[in-house]
Amino acid sequence: MERVCFLLKVRPERLAEYRERHAAVWPGMLDALRATGWRNYSLFLREDGLLVGYLETDDFAGARAGMAATEVNARWQAEMAPFFESLDGRPDEGMRPLTEVFHLD
Amino acid sequence: MERVCFLLKVRPERLAEYRERHAAVWPGMLDALRATGWRNYSLFLREDGLLVGYLETDDFAGARAGMAATEVNARWQAEMAPFFESLDGRPDEGMRPLTEVFHLD
Repeated sequence: MERVCFLLKVRPERLAEYRERHAAVWPGMLDALRATGWRNYSLFLREDGLLVGYLETDDFAGARAGMAATEVNARWQAEMAPFFESLDGRPDEGMRPLTEVFHLD
Repeated sequence: MERVCFLLKVRPERLAEYRERHAAVWPGMLDALRATGWRNYSLFLREDGLLVGYLETDDFAGARAGMAATEVNARWQAEMAPFFESLDGRPDEGMRPLTEVFHLD
């Protein structure tokens, strides 16, 4: 099992709307995440827009490729892209996992 | 169950040593974390020293107070404090949880 943590930066002027959108993620998006192996997936937001993602999966490369191949993800990422700073493409392509340095079960 | 995410900043010049220390956390520290309800606890490090902590617990306020009352934690935090930037006290007292904006089981 892999534990994955990544960071993104939400534009401060879009924070309220970002929160609203993530309180009502499309059911089809949730189904696609589950079907492609994203588990125990949370997003946490700091007041300045720093966003932390945490998830567990058996194979992150596979889970990421699986999502990237879905039509619903392409639509979701296109709508989410303008919420983020310093992205050269889709938000899901900008996820750069950090290194795990400690774990206690 | 609460999912908690917090951020700290490790001094860039101490990153290697920070990694080494966390690959060999004292067994007494691990026992104390378990005994006070810290579960599925991971630390992730970005190259510039940004540190992300993620944990699950039934009661974060209680887990935090429980650890703060242990002697082993006082010793550990005293040794860890010089590794961090911009702290006014012990690292465990500087943990400011972010807000969870999304979760998928």
